[in-house]
Amino acid sequence: MAKDFLKREENYSKWYNDIVLKAGLAENSAVRGCMVIKPYGYAIWEKMQAALDKMFKDTGHSNAYFPLFIPKSFLSKEADHVEGFAKECAVVTHYRLKNSDNGDGIIVDENAKLEEELIVRPTSETIIWDTYRKWVQSYRDLPILVNQWANVVRWEMRTRLFLRTAEFLWQEGHTAHATKEEAIEETEKMLEVYTEFAEKFMATPVIKGLKSENERFAGAIETYCIEALMQDGKALQAGTSHFLGQNFAKAFDVKFSNKEGKEEYVWASSWGVSTRLVGALIMAHSDDNGLVLPPKLAPIQVAIIPIYKSDEEYKITCEKAKEIKKELESKNISVKLDDRDTHKPGWKFNEYEFKGVPVRIAVGMRDIKNKTVEVARRDTLEKTSYQEADIANKIEHLLEAIQDNLYQKALTFREDNTTKVDSWDKFKEVLDNKGGFILAHWDGTAETEEKIKQETKATIRCIPLNSIAEKGKCVYSGNPSEKRVIFARAY
Amino acid sequence: MAKDFLKREENYSKWYNDIVLKAGLAENSAVRGCMVIKPYGYAIWEKMQAALDKMFKDTGHSNAYFPLFIPKSFLSKEADHVEGFAKECAVVTHYRLKNSDNGDGIIVDENAKLEEELIVRPTSETIIWDTYRKWVQSYRDLPILVNQWANVVRWEMRTRLFLRTAEFLWQEGHTAHATKEEAIEETEKMLEVYTEFAEKFMATPVIKGLKSENERFAGAIETYCIEALMQDGKALQAGTSHFLGQNFAKAFDVKFSNKEGKEEYVWASSWGVSTRLVGALIMAHSDDNGLVLPPKLAPIQVAIIPIYKSDEEYKITCEKAKEIKKELESKNISVKLDDRDTHKPGWKFNEYEFKGVPVRIAVGMRDIKNKTVEVARRDTLEKTSYQEADIANKIEHLLEAIQDNLYQKALTFREDNTTKVDSWDKFKEVLDNKGGFILAHWDGTAETEEKIKQETKATIRCIPLNSIAEKGKCVYSGNPSEKRVIFARAY
Repeated sequence: MAKDFLKREENYSKWYNDIVLKAGLAENSAVRGCMVIKPYGYAIWEKMQAALDKMFKDTGHSNAYFPLFIPKSFLSKEADHVEGFAKECAVVTHYRLKNSDNGDGIIVDENAKLEEELIVRPTSETIIWDTYRKWVQSYRDLPILVNQWANVVRWEMRTRLFLRTAEFLWQEGHTAHATKEEAIEETEKMLEVYTEFAEKFMATPVIKGLKSENERFAGAIETYCIEALMQDGKALQAGTSHFLGQNFAKAFDVKFSNKEGKEEYVWASSWGVSTRLVGALIMAHSDDNGLVLPPKLAPIQVAIIPIYKSDEEYKITCEKAKEIKKELESKNISVKLDDRDTHKPGWKFNEYEFKGVPVRIAVGMRDIKNKTVEVARRDTLEKTSYQEADIANKIEHLLEAIQDNLYQKALTFREDNTTKVDSWDKFKEVLDNKGGFILAHWDGTAETEEKIKQETKATIRCIPLNSIAEKGKCVYSGNPSEKRVIFARAY
Repeated sequence: MAKDFLKREENYSKWYNDIVLKAGLAENSAVRGCMVIKPYGYAIWEKMQAALDKMFKDTGHSNAYFPLFIPKSFLSKEADHVEGFAKECAVVTHYRLKNSDNGDGIIVDENAKLEEELIVRPTSETIIWDTYRKWVQSYRDLPILVNQWANVVRWEMRTRLFLRTAEFLWQEGHTAHATKEEAIEETEKMLEVYTEFAEKFMATPVIKGLKSENERFAGAIETYCIEALMQDGKALQAGTSHFLGQNFAKAFDVKFSNKEGKEEYVWASSWGVSTRLVGALIMAHSDDNGLVLPPKLAPIQVAIIPIYKSDEEYKITCEKAKEIKKELESKNISVKLDDRDTHKPGWKFNEYEFKGVPVRIAVGMRDIKNKTVEVARRDTLEKTSYQEADIANKIEHLLEAIQDNLYQKALTFREDNTTKVDSWDKFKEVLDNKGGFILAHWDGTAETEEKIKQETKATIRCIPLNSIAEKGKCVYSGNPSEKRVIFARAY
């Protein structure tokens, strides 16, 4: 185990940060708020990208690429949008540097000032809808189902590795439709895609819902989201899908002639997830021994470690380890055989445990004699001796079992930490002592939501899509309510 | 065929631009010099990325991600580097906008001025070597074999879609080594990877060589490159691999203790290719009927078009087309079945021809009766009737034949357009009337190179790695020379 590694209950925040740093996932850079994603962390993001990209393509989307820069005036075109994004952005004002006159370095060349400043994209609705105007004339040009993998910048003041960084990587889908119904259908379809990804790949159960007006995306008519619960009882928004109505089409004058030859504004959706999901993944499953990764997103699914005492034994155990590696790889299992003789087996055990590798296989002389291998699973830390015969199939099933177990464990945790609350005192008590999701009645007003936030730092995470109609009284104001919503403190 | 489409000989430059626009590959955006890569163009880039990424990983590299922004002071740390990159870069000076006092829009908030300006990366050596300092202590931490897929910005004044844009997408490998030999070996290995990619995937023969000092990457000891010849007789640099010596290690103080415990500076390489390769691909093979794509990089390898006169025939031909599609897909061939009844077959034929789809299959009633399909290949425009039996195997072989043919054709073109020249008059004559690669003696001085460039716009594309020692006289100065180098006008 890494040195000086704290338990979750000692200092959750430091525990998280230490996993990110000591497992080699990411680190801070010389640029305030921007992180370096290290190879092991980036490999997790690549696995996420591959799974999501396939799901996007299977649902009819194509990738494209739009400019990094957005002319300043574009931001102002959609009234709500500018309020949400102008406050924290990187502004490009010049296009050249020059040597300073006194010869001690380079300075901005004041003769190279841009006529109009450029904003480094915080999100791309504006530049994309400016482009779509040229792509759409008739209903035959619709729908446009486009996604972009890109970097974006939001000048956050308080940053945390993966969870909140000034620059982050994400995908942003931007679709254009002939009808409102179709745009809403798309918005909901992509929420389903995100849900499936979170549950099947990240092994993280999520609650699907709508954001309240306060929490809605700047420029959206309706924001759908999925909310996950972390081990410290705080919520994390794991993906959003926005129904944008005709707001951006109107702002950028994107019209089409419908089947009857009449001009109409185009309907829109946008949806995105980011490298923040890597942070969610870390927090959802990891434990006091370090990172725990679900097999479907683990860059290394199985680590094989030979155990030996002599050069002769080294040769024999490595030979067997290579054999097993080859067998596992024939099942598309990603395997790392660690045959370095510069490190002891115990050191390696700790290393792969801390890095969250789902399965560790040790191959020693006694194993070879007995035609067995020692198999340790990261989620339960159990060790078992497996007969070597048919090992690839057995490991394949074990990886599936680990994936399922992580999901079930996270689901049980969420169920244990979701509390129905019917009074304000109870609300505060649960929030402070237990945390988690609080299901409570809310009067539907932004004022109440704001007051609750001010008093407790809890926000409405979502109005669940599957909530059951239930008459009640707002936990704060006592005014009538039709259904419960989910409150929590959040990342 | 697209309307108003010029032949290559009428206006090569417009011919190129029209292919990019009319085949839906890319277009200019509202931001000067920045392009929008449209889905069809991006799909080609994705195919390139997939092939290259696999080759990088097969040679031991991992991907990572470093910040978009570079502190201004970092650029100055390597003396040559700053000269090369400070001249044309996007400078971030502020981090917030605000509503203007007169209420007519948003303006830069002067209270949100950065203490130190940030440069949008034109290349990442500086920020990466600032990071490597933290990663390297001992020889055990080496080598570092890292690649990054990213966007970069160079403020070009004259831009052309794909070939030269202010923002472009690329990959940049940055490796760190314990010895000079190892770093040079890496530099050469990656040049081989690029060569293999250009020849096997892009079907484009390239000449491997070294850049002259004038053309070297700012901060490199030696720049290796591959040079391809376009159909208008101009050269295009298709990839570079730089041996950086200890320049960046010294600039950023990256040292390691070697096996003897002595401190040394780390040795470096960097190497990159960009979306410019999409431009090269277009120019290398396309013809007066539009885009021609090599099968290995074609987003759609086969288009199937049903030919019918009635609803009944539509049903029957589509049924057969689907059958064939399924068969082809079982061989991992990417197929588009165009069963739209809003467009006539002739229109579709032109569409897929213009878009460079390597193989087109037409399925009509007579074909079905005869158990045949009509197969047209894009490279030669030949049409042949194929027996339907074993169609997937036949098409698989046809795609291979097309890939080979495109490469051979490009190779023959290059050979026909490479001229040995031994006098200055001949040099100018060949350059103006024939173009292409000119193999000529050069005296090795930067002065001569510069004068040749001023008089003819031709530059030394490379000093070929495989050049044969041959005593001669410099084509310009008459001074002695040991070998021929390649001159050409270039993109």
